[in-house]
Amino acid sequence: MKTKEKRGPVLSTDYTEGAHPAVMRALISSNSESVPGYGHDAYCETAAARIRRVCRAPKAEVYFLVGGTQTNALALDSLLKPYEGVLSAESGHIANHESGAVEFTGHKVLTLPAENGKITGESIRNWCRRFYADESYEHMVFPGVVYLSQPTEFGTLYSLEELTRIREAADEFGLRIYVDGARLAYALAAPENDVTLPDLARLCDAFYIGGTKCGTLFGEALVFPKPGLVPHFITLEKQHGAMLAKGRLLGVQFGRLFTRDLYGQIGRHAIAMAARLREGLKASGFEEAVSSPTNQIFVKVPAETYRRLQEANVGGFWSYEPDGSVLVRFVTSWATRPEAVETALSVLKESQDV
Amino acid sequence: MKTKEKRGPVLSTDYTEGAHPAVMRALISSNSESVPGYGHDAYCETAAARIRRVCRAPKAEVYFLVGGTQTNALALDSLLKPYEGVLSAESGHIANHESGAVEFTGHKVLTLPAENGKITGESIRNWCRRFYADESYEHMVFPGVVYLSQPTEFGTLYSLEELTRIREAADEFGLRIYVDGARLAYALAAPENDVTLPDLARLCDAFYIGGTKCGTLFGEALVFPKPGLVPHFITLEKQHGAMLAKGRLLGVQFGRLFTRDLYGQIGRHAIAMAARLREGLKASGFEEAVSSPTNQIFVKVPAETYRRLQEANVGGFWSYEPDGSVLVRFVTSWATRPEAVETALSVLKESQDV
Amino acid sequence: MKTKEKRGPVLSTDYTEGAHPAVMRALISSNSESVPGYGHDAYCETAAARIRRVCRAPKAEVYFLVGGTQTNALALDSLLKPYEGVLSAESGHIANHESGAVEFTGHKVLTLPAENGKITGESIRNWCRRFYADESYEHMVFPGVVYLSQPTEFGTLYSLEELTRIREAADEFGLRIYVDGARLAYALAAPENDVTLPDLARLCDAFYIGGTKCGTLFGEALVFPKPGLVPHFITLEKQHGAMLAKGRLLGVQFGRLFTRDLYGQIGRHAIAMAARLREGLKASGFEEAVSSPTNQIFVKVPAETYRRLQEANVGGFWSYEPDGSVLVRFVTSWATRPEAVETALSVLKESQDV
Amino acid sequence: MKTKEKRGPVLSTDYTEGAHPAVMRALISSNSESVPGYGHDAYCETAAARIRRVCRAPKAEVYFLVGGTQTNALALDSLLKPYEGVLSAESGHIANHESGAVEFTGHKVLTLPAENGKITGESIRNWCRRFYADESYEHMVFPGVVYLSQPTEFGTLYSLEELTRIREAADEFGLRIYVDGARLAYALAAPENDVTLPDLARLCDAFYIGGTKCGTLFGEALVFPKPGLVPHFITLEKQHGAMLAKGRLLGVQFGRLFTRDLYGQIGRHAIAMAARLREGLKASGFEEAVSSPTNQIFVKVPAETYRRLQEANVGGFWSYEPDGSVLVRFVTSWATRPEAVETALSVLKESQDV
Repeated sequence: MKTKEKRGPVLSTDYTEGAHPAVMRALISSNSESVPGYGHDAYCETAAARIRRVCRAPKAEVYFLVGGTQTNALALDSLLKPYEGVLSAESGHIANHESGAVEFTGHKVLTLPAENGKITGESIRNWCRRFYADESYEHMVFPGVVYLSQPTEFGTLYSLEELTRIREAADEFGLRIYVDGARLAYALAAPENDVTLPDLARLCDAFYIGGTKCGTLFGEALVFPKPGLVPHFITLEKQHGAMLAKGRLLGVQFGRLFTRDLYGQIGRHAIAMAARLREGLKASGFEEAVSSPTNQIFVKVPAETYRRLQEANVGGFWSYEPDGSVLVRFVTSWATRPEAVETALSVLKESQDV
Repeated sequence: MKTKEKRGPVLSTDYTEGAHPAVMRALISSNSESVPGYGHDAYCETAAARIRRVCRAPKAEVYFLVGGTQTNALALDSLLKPYEGVLSAESGHIANHESGAVEFTGHKVLTLPAENGKITGESIRNWCRRFYADESYEHMVFPGVVYLSQPTEFGTLYSLEELTRIREAADEFGLRIYVDGARLAYALAAPENDVTLPDLARLCDAFYIGGTKCGTLFGEALVFPKPGLVPHFITLEKQHGAMLAKGRLLGVQFGRLFTRDLYGQIGRHAIAMAARLREGLKASGFEEAVSSPTNQIFVKVPAETYRRLQEANVGGFWSYEPDGSVLVRFVTSWATRPEAVETALSVLKESQDV
Repeated sequence: MKTKEKRGPVLSTDYTEGAHPAVMRALISSNSESVPGYGHDAYCETAAARIRRVCRAPKAEVYFLVGGTQTNALALDSLLKPYEGVLSAESGHIANHESGAVEFTGHKVLTLPAENGKITGESIRNWCRRFYADESYEHMVFPGVVYLSQPTEFGTLYSLEELTRIREAADEFGLRIYVDGARLAYALAAPENDVTLPDLARLCDAFYIGGTKCGTLFGEALVFPKPGLVPHFITLEKQHGAMLAKGRLLGVQFGRLFTRDLYGQIGRHAIAMAARLREGLKASGFEEAVSSPTNQIFVKVPAETYRRLQEANVGGFWSYEPDGSVLVRFVTSWATRPEAVETALSVLKESQDV
Repeated sequence: MKTKEKRGPVLSTDYTEGAHPAVMRALISSNSESVPGYGHDAYCETAAARIRRVCRAPKAEVYFLVGGTQTNALALDSLLKPYEGVLSAESGHIANHESGAVEFTGHKVLTLPAENGKITGESIRNWCRRFYADESYEHMVFPGVVYLSQPTEFGTLYSLEELTRIREAADEFGLRIYVDGARLAYALAAPENDVTLPDLARLCDAFYIGGTKCGTLFGEALVFPKPGLVPHFITLEKQHGAMLAKGRLLGVQFGRLFTRDLYGQIGRHAIAMAARLREGLKASGFEEAVSSPTNQIFVKVPAETYRRLQEANVGGFWSYEPDGSVLVRFVTSWATRPEAVETALSVLKESQDV
């Protein structure tokens, strides 16, 4: 394997490794068992039960899907009526980096200006007021669902207070709330966070607990806290090409994530690594472009520094800035070793010394 | 785990176990490596190169996807022009058991009568002649792609001669050919088979080499033998929610399948187990409902026998017959142990003795 | 204008002329008035009120659309849930001659064998029973709506008894019923008919009263007898590109159709002309291929006769028969003059004399 | 008819009347002729030939459709590849007032900031540069077509110079250009305009010549200057429910519009009426909110003035302004009588005198 010769990417993102070893062990130990397909197995049942318990949502419907874009597109399509679109921060993942997967299902993404990746109850309310004040609103796309990500694409967090305000605005205009939790473990583990899984279950109509970026080989657990919201979800899943034949793989992995607080451990490790990186950056005089408490750290660096980071395969490109510098993103995960943080800091430091 | 207490399903289908142990070992050994996401890694590169080699299609484009319905819907959508539909046997998987995934992408499935799951060059030619003879054909759905499955849903096989005739008919009417190879390993290993991977690459515009039912945890390798047929397939993949973040998982698995002929071994084992079952059935006086040379065996049994099979968790329901009997399907796989075959035969035998 | 030099098509179909003179006069007299757009005008209001009255459905929602395929696709999309398809006779217009417009909206057409264009309560019931008996029905397309056409594509009629049986089957499986009434005037006027507009309103969930083929320049009146079934239909209409800016044109035309029984007159005239043609055909020894009581008459003729009909621009091609002969369709309408019938009969007669 | 009692809306928009009397006469005189359906008639042929001539595009394909949203959605869907979206001014009609018709066909509208409704070659170029500079552009929606409206939604015009710059930018990035000409007559007739029909045919890949707002009962003529760009457009038209059975109605109307320069006359009349209104507004001290040279005039008025305008059924609501005032739009058309302008001016004047 050639990949072994070259050092893999460092801190570039949180899906560069396989599964957390404990998750891998669960897959190994169940591998030779014969169980029914399509999620009709005891592993899925057990995993769903554990998720219901940690969410304190005893009647929640839990569906296990493979990936994030798939989950977003399927969940939103199932929540939206045909004449509705989804309200999203203009920086929302669905608005930018999913190749138009939402539009592919026939729905418009209605973008709201965002600050550090976040929208507010107030901005939703204003948007809806303008919408219904327009005499020709029947010729427009109705707002139907609010899309949030926790943490956001910039690693920032909605507070319980903010989420509550959004719920109020949503209720005022008959909107549902959907939360993209691709990196939810890293939100839950952040010291600044005050939104728990039971809060999400109480305040949202649907959300997903991310596995792919938080310890599994792949997989996202979609939760509808109130049962019966989406009839025949299984069929929609199949129709979207989102059903995994060996559904048990998702049950086994999520079952393990929610055993002995593995999901919590995973989150806390990444947050600890991120804290160490933040400290080092500060010590070296680098400033975070976005003040964020989770596992993503954005730093603006000169083009030359970016070149060195690339050479060392450290960090990831985010965007070119108008002044010629580059916004770089460092991401920690369950798999991040302290040496990786040191590597990143030393490359950055060296580039300063020039 | 409750599943351990209850014996898992026996011969019910070919996706009741995890991955072939050798595939699993490859996943384990590569698990902690850090590699880039979305299939831009050396494992995917190596796997694709091996597939090109076994297909003798040195310029083929190879894409790794997660599941069969997903692959069918995405591949067909990418091959079809917006005014075209896909010709399929009326018993084709896309026409019946994919929850309308093809229609979800906006295309019609145009069904042809089939015998034992197969259509012919002649039936395609006749359909197309009738189509173009209709003066209002511009108000109809144009034929665009021919969908075949090898083996078919009934386990039968297209011969090289038959496939060649279909290619001729397709060429006459400007159609592309797509082959669903969910169980391709079991076709390739059947003694009756005379269609090789290089034949598929030569005669088809696209086909997929099934992994999910043939030894991997999940995954299908979609092959476009002639490059450039579908521009920006990666983006379409993302748009369909079909892109796996940790694409390496597919590369690792398919890389292993095509190392030291594992794919061939897997196929041959299942075919050997199926032969043993066929022999036993014949000895007991059971007749196959469809004469098929691969890993699926269809037997019509009395309702009472079906009840006993269910009780024993052996075989799978296929359909109720008008006379009250039940069509049962037995499926072997890489994971089938001889004892499973014995179990099935003894349940069937006992039910006869009553 | 070149068209004036050449005689136009005779009895080829029921949309070869413009509007009935009385409808045209209504358009002329209202032409210079300034009224609001998009159907928010008094003409539409009045027309809808009249339709509610003749349907004895005082709360019905009535929407005016431009064409038949548009109305079918929009109405079905609005009635179907995303996991549902529409049951149709295999000869149904939506299954054959609408370029996959239903599939374009993401839904499958589920075809049932038909006799003379008709399906039965029994065939629907059997289809649904088989569907729900299949253990993997969640992987299939759910039946959602029954599509009927009155008269059918072959000019045949559902009797009140037959429609009642279909309603019972539909209720048993939670299906809605939609009736395509492109040629409804000709059904209502047929002596054999016993299904009235109030019957349709009572037994169906939606149906449309055809204008395009029954006296207007264009336009179909879609009726939802029970209000509230489809929220925000106006927005769906716009989304499908089906909203007419000058909606008043539809209101004016349908308002006139349902004044002084013009719709009845139109139907009766066409039926009288069809009767005369039938008589002449019988006298000349031609046999109807389908026994139908409305304005379409299907006759199988030798290829040479078809050539002569073509030359004379009389009748319309329907299909080639296996024996080399041609199925020809003659259609009468509000615009058919007795001389047209004579022309058709004399061409047919002459061809016999050879 | 109740509508006769109440005065219709004045200057509210350009589709409040029926057809221009000359167009109506053409419909009347051809009404009883029998011609083939679906646009296969001599009227459509003649009208297309005339349009080719005025566009100096002898090989152009011309298709006649019913309405603007329909034409936009169908034309864009036919021009866009499945992985592409359409670039539009954020104020573009497709981005706001078509109920998501573009998204319904699976494509994203990619919005660019606009000034007075216009985008520039520079803004397109910058957007595309950023797009291709993003390392993950394969996960985004590719730019495929540039949507422009001439005149824009604010009545402003692209100059020949501006359109040429846009063409250059489009060519640099392989984009097609589509122009929405719903009100094209009013652009062509404006003294400030320097973009002719032959310019549009030379610089664009598709555009439509608006009929609905420019003299016909309904209808838009879609022009593809270079033939062969969209194969089987007729079938796509049918699939979108956009095909008019009596296609001749469109041929008759557009044939007349392009006879003896009726389209020019219609435009000039509306522009003359708009000039008179502009003069009167200026004299009364009202200022145009957007400086526009065509038939739409935007004026910001106090809420009380708006109330009076509403009472008098004069002008149309555009939007509420943050300061409590209302943006009102006055629209002239071929049907505007000088008295209507006087009425509007007197209501505005009276409201000032209070």
